[in-house]
Formats: sequence, C-alpha cells, structure tokens
Amino acid sequence: MPMPTSRTRAAPTNAIYAQSGGVTAVINASAAGVIEAARRSRRIGKLLAGRNGIVGVLEEDLIDTSRESDAAIAALRNMPGGAFGSCRFKLGSLEKNRAQYERLLAVFKAHGVGMFFYNGGGDSADTCLKIAQLGEALGYPLQAIHVPKTIDNDLPRTDTCPGFGSVAKYVAISTREASMDVRSMASTSTRVFVLEVMGRHAGWIAAAAALASDRKLPIPLVLLLPEVPFDTARFLAAVQARVQAHGYCTVVASEGAQTADGKFLADQGTTDAFGHAQLGGVAPLIASLVKRELALKVHWATADYLQRSARHIASATDLEQSYAVGKAAVALALQGRNAVMPTIERVRQRPYTWRIGEAPLQEVANVERKMPREFIDATGFGITPAARGYLAPLIQGEPKTPFEDGLPAYPRLKHVAVKRRLPAFSAAGKPTPA
Amino acid sequence: MPMPTSRTRAAPTNAIYAQSGGVTAVINASAAGVIEAARRSRRIGKLLAGRNGIVGVLEEDLIDTSRESDAAIAALRNMPGGAFGSCRFKLGSLEKNRAQYERLLAVFKAHGVGMFFYNGGGDSADTCLKIAQLGEALGYPLQAIHVPKTIDNDLPRTDTCPGFGSVAKYVAISTREASMDVRSMASTSTRVFVLEVMGRHAGWIAAAAALASDRKLPIPLVLLLPEVPFDTARFLAAVQARVQAHGYCTVVASEGAQTADGKFLADQGTTDAFGHAQLGGVAPLIASLVKRELALKVHWATADYLQRSARHIASATDLEQSYAVGKAAVALALQGRNAVMPTIERVRQRPYTWRIGEAPLQEVANVERKMPREFIDATGFGITPAARGYLAPLIQGEPKTPFEDGLPAYPRLKHVAVKRRLPAFSAAGKPTPA
Repeated sequence: MPMPTSRTRAAPTNAIYAQSGGVTAVINASAAGVIEAARRSRRIGKLLAGRNGIVGVLEEDLIDTSRESDAAIAALRNMPGGAFGSCRFKLGSLEKNRAQYERLLAVFKAHGVGMFFYNGGGDSADTCLKIAQLGEALGYPLQAIHVPKTIDNDLPRTDTCPGFGSVAKYVAISTREASMDVRSMASTSTRVFVLEVMGRHAGWIAAAAALASDRKLPIPLVLLLPEVPFDTARFLAAVQARVQAHGYCTVVASEGAQTADGKFLADQGTTDAFGHAQLGGVAPLIASLVKRELALKVHWATADYLQRSARHIASATDLEQSYAVGKAAVALALQGRNAVMPTIERVRQRPYTWRIGEAPLQEVANVERKMPREFIDATGFGITPAARGYLAPLIQGEPKTPFEDGLPAYPRLKHVAVKRRLPAFSAAGKPTPA
Repeated sequence: MPMPTSRTRAAPTNAIYAQSGGVTAVINASAAGVIEAARRSRRIGKLLAGRNGIVGVLEEDLIDTSRESDAAIAALRNMPGGAFGSCRFKLGSLEKNRAQYERLLAVFKAHGVGMFFYNGGGDSADTCLKIAQLGEALGYPLQAIHVPKTIDNDLPRTDTCPGFGSVAKYVAISTREASMDVRSMASTSTRVFVLEVMGRHAGWIAAAAALASDRKLPIPLVLLLPEVPFDTARFLAAVQARVQAHGYCTVVASEGAQTADGKFLADQGTTDAFGHAQLGGVAPLIASLVKRELALKVHWATADYLQRSARHIASATDLEQSYAVGKAAVALALQGRNAVMPTIERVRQRPYTWRIGEAPLQEVANVERKMPREFIDATGFGITPAARGYLAPLIQGEPKTPFEDGLPAYPRLKHVAVKRRLPAFSAAGKPTPA
C-alpha cells in the first residue's frame, strides 16, 4: 500500500458525494440523506461534494458541505435540480481513460477521502464500480457506493429507481388534468390532446400516464411506448375509435416511440420554412398526423424538463425512498461495504411496504431493465393490471412543500470551495456536444 | 310584453349557467359560486347548465344542476376543465344570426329562465350583452350577467381575470423548477431551456415567468413577448450574454411572439421529412435557432393545456376570486342588474387586498386590455418593478387540494338532462374547424 502523502497522514475518513447525469425532482433528497447520515456518524470527517458531479472531482473543484447549515441540508429535500451541479460526462473504459481514474484517486488521496458516494443511473454505476476496482488494484482504501437515481427506472436489482415515482406522478396528474380540459372542449374544438414524455429506451414514464384513468374517472387514452413498434394505421384507428366512443382522446407519447425498423419518430427530419433542420419532437409529429389524417382539432404539449423538475408535485413515496437510499449508502459504507448500491425492495403490494436492500455493482453496471412485456396490454396502447399494480404505489403521497410568495422556496447553499491541493487538471471531452 | 307560454305561466325564476371558450384551472370554482349562491337564494328556482356551453343552450341540451349533491358542487372548486362542457362557438352579429339569438330566448322562455350567467372571456361578454339587448328589445324579462374568465387576462374594467393567476403561478413555478434543472446540467450539457407558454396577443402569461426569479434566487431569463418585435440578433446576443454570465439561460416564449411585420414565429412553415406541414410551435423554433447559431445544447418544452388545467397548483388568490365572481354574479342578478359583469378591484398592493366591483357589459364587450408598455423593461426581454408589483399578488397561496391514490380527486357529476320542450335545433357552424 502506498504511503499517504504528508497532507493526508491520517486515515482517509473524509468522503465525496457527487451527482451524475440527468437530475430528478428528488435527487437532492438523496444528497440530504447522505449528508445528514454523514453528519451523524462519528467516523466520517468532512463530506465534500463535487461541483458539477464527477467533473468537479476530476478538476478538484470541491464544495465543503460542512459549511452548509443543518437547515439548508434539510431543505435540500424540497429542491429540484442538482444542488451541487450534475454532469453528463462518461469516464469510459479503464484502459482508454486510465489517467482520469488515476486523477480521481489522486484527488481522493489529497483530500483524505476514503468514501465515494456517486448518485446516478446506469452509466454512473459502471463508473462507480471502476473506481472501486482501481482503488483495490492500487491498494488505496476506498469504498465506492452508488446511490441510485434515474427517472428512466431502468436500473436492475431495485424495485424502482428514486426519481421515477415523481416523474410518474407528474405525468399521471398532467394527463388527468389536461384530459379534463380537452374533454370539456371536444364538442366544438379540440378532440385530441398529445402529451410527449421522456423515455428514450423504455416506456415506464408513458405507462405511468395510464394511472390518470381509473374506474371512477375513465379517460380514453392511447399510449405510444418505445417497446411497441409504431404503426400509423393502427394508431389512427385507435384514436378514431376513442373519439367516436368518448368524444375525445388523449395520446401520451414516449419520446422514444419508434417504427418497426427502430427509427425514432422524433428523428424524422423536420425542417423550417428556410430548410433549416428543426429539433424534432414526437408530439408535434403525432399532432400533425392526427390533424391531417383524421381532420380533428389537436393540441400538443411537450413536458421535457418540467416533468423531471416538478418538485412541487413530487411523490412522497419517491421522496422518502430517495432520502432513504442516500442514508443507506452511508450506512453501507460504515459497515465496510464497497462497490454496492442500496436498493428499494417491495415487501408488500397492498398496502405497499418497502425496505432497503443492497446489490453488488457488478450486477448493476451495464444492465438495463426494460419494461416487462406482460406490463403492456394486447393492443399495445395501454398497460395491464400487473403494470398498474406495480406503478400505483410509486406515486402515493404529496409531500409538504414550503412556499414563499406563491413559489416553492429553496435553500441558499453557500457552496464554499475547498482549497485546491493538486495541479490543475482539465476533464477532457467536456462539454458533451448537443 | 308577450304572454308567457302555458308551460311557463309562472314568472321566469329559473336560471341558466354556461361555460364558454378555453377553460381554466379554476372556472369550475365560478360554477360552484354561481350554483351555491343560487341554492341559497329563495328567489331562484332551478339552475340549469348548458351542456357544452351556449351550444347546449341553443340545442336545448340542458343539465339540471339541482340533481347534483352539495358535496359535488363544493368539490367543483378542485376540478379543472369545464365541468359542464365548454365550447368555442361565436354567435356573431344580431343581424346575421338573429335566429340563434331568438332560439336562445325561446329556450329561456320554455324553461322559465329569467337569469343567464355566461362564464367566459371577451367574445362571451359580447354575446352576453347581445342576449341582454335582445331580451329588452323583445320585452322578455331577462337578466344576463357575465362571469369573467380567461387565462389571457385581457378583459377590461377588472384588475385581473379569473383563471389568469393560476396559469401565472404554474408558469412561474415551472420556470423556477426547470431553471434549477438546467442550472445544474449546464457545465457539461444543456445550457439553454426554452419554455413556450400561451398568449397569442398579449404577453401577460410569459411576463409571469419573471416571478420565478427574485433577489434570493436570481434566474437568467429572456422573455419573448408578443408586444416586442422579435429580432434574431438581439435575442441571440441576450441569450449569449446570460450564458456567459451565469452558465445557463431560460427563455420563456409567448406563443404569440412575432416579428416586426406581425408574423407569428409559430406560423413559419415547418414541414416533416415528407414535406407535410407540421403544427408549429415557438419553442422548437427558438431552440433550433439557439442550437444552430450559438452551438449550445438546448432543451425545450411546450406547456399548452398543462398550464391552464394545472389545478393541483392553482393560485389560492385566483381560486377565491373565481369563486367570488360566480357568487357575485348571482348577487347582481338578485339586485336586478342586467348586462353587467362582476369585476375584481385591487384595493391595496401590499398587503394585497381586493373586493368585487361591477362593470356594464357595454364597456367590456369588444375591448381588449393589452399589457401596458410600462410593464416591459427597456431591453424588451424582461418586466419592470411595476409589472412585478401587479403580478406578484395574483399567484399567492396554495389551495388545499384533495388527493386520492396519489392523484387529484374530482367530483362525479350526474349531468341529469332536462326534458326537452322545443323542436330540435342545430347550432350551425359547429364544430369550429381546427
């Protein structure tokens, strides 16, 4: 084992927390969980945060979270976005990018860091695993714990992914509300409403829209899931049938909706009047198709970041789970674990109960959980009772959110920078191009 | 005065309520106000509702609101959309469409209706006035009272329009939340977020986005208002300056954003790969422009119906005012008024207090209130302190909203139809084409 440098003669008891990838409405609840658990522990020294995720760690741009008040940390539960900044930055393979991994370990050493908490999705779990492996290979005493987070709900080994329940709730509520609107306009005006939601590879988010409709309040819905090849004629027939039966129809389209040849509907070459390429979108495409082929008035919306930042209507269940995985990550580290991720285990369906589990990162990294085929109904435009049973508990509960002057109030963080101890290093490859 | 028919020998003590035009998140609070006040009055017999607005009145498709429970009527306060159906249907001039106006009076007579409450915007105010005038001309004892409602905030004589405060709150909250998201992604990913909001003729709604930013939480915003001609170079310079200073920028674009020649940006001829016209949108256009000219990663959202149906985050102030104008409309009728509209009067700015006023429809019909020039700052991309002072009180307060299974709960109305007494009549011209 290499000797610690003079600056870090003590055992590495400090820790680093970093946020990674697309943020969620509740990722900061995980940050609060990590920070509060670390504060309560006697064995963790300082908890530092990477400014803008792993990029800040690479560039030794660290935030001293001990300078934030307990109240500010508690209030992180209410704040969307990434409180310390996130990033889209892939470290890539150990072979090709060894210098970056070694830089990470150099930063850990320089700041006496023995625990690394990485809050992200599938790619980040892989990075976290590689960091753990390199630490072991170099004999540096490091525990790398992954804190799960992704609205895509595609991490394996966990019943659900923190962040998903809130976007699911947002989409279900928005679908219900907008459907009430179009229903009341349909006799003389809009008959079809199209809502585009996230989900490039899986239809989890679009599937959650189905929760908007239940026996008490049936809504004529058509879901467009990436798992079901888009067929123009079948789609138009489904819309028309619903309009005939109910007077209106709400279409919820996954951004990843695609034709049988795997081509995304959104990538079909939209151009403006001057021939410039225009950033596509499934919703305007579907809306135009319905208007042209069925001669019905259509409105469309694209929720984009609104859906994943809507902390004001987060799921209380999701919020609690996001906090819990943060707290559990610290507990796992204190138990001596390495290269693991706390998971959510479903104990009972009705009434829904859950507990925290644990999965080795070896079984998480590079494994994408798809929506099971048995969650999609025979028409391909809806979900099964099994899917409903899975999804329904995840959107339960409305957390109390503090408001000030009619708007959600957020903590003001000080973001006090930690003094640099190493030569400058540029995280090459940043920024990721559009 | 013509003799009442045998069916309506009694004085016309019944009333009709109808919803008109684009609905709002709180229009049903006005319905609750009208119905509850009518129930408490001893002088109003039955309150009927037009199914799908004035179209239902023309076609004698009426709903007997007395068959709905008190609890269901109270719960209308929580329900977005139009609970009895709305319509986009313009009666037009008395000269050209006299048959329709006479049919309305025939329906009133047949059902003993002496009061008509019309819940809508500027066009509806004009219709309501014409109905009042025709009643007078024909000697039919009718009181026509307009209940103001429009998210466009463009009715004169009232400080604000019921429905506007809630969409303003939705837009301010969404802008704040999404800005927290893009702020945390900006170091390596999205730098500009574009949100398209409603407002074809005036920038009231886009202006409300500015409330998202305050001294405690400054957000680098660029507003695109219809009142300020869009200039590509100036816009791009404004975005670039904000990205340089803050790392990111949020653009909130009015759907009515237009160039100096009065051409809507949204109507600039978008086509798909097959040359089909695609329903436009300001947000994708602006996003493409920023990406192309500034080479920055951009995300965009189009809120569309989500913004005007978001009852879950309605403004408590707006909700109270919407209820109050409904209640006041009945009070005005009981005081013998005709061809008037209850208004909101601002009594004090800080702390904000308001009261109900009254305006003659003669002064409301066909008058559009624009956003005053002194509400737009010198750059044209932001609002002045005067605008902030006007807007801020309107988004105050978060009404308690009942949830069930993680979703907003709505009343189930029975919608019991009133027996028809007249020959069939088709409301020609419906449906309005897309």
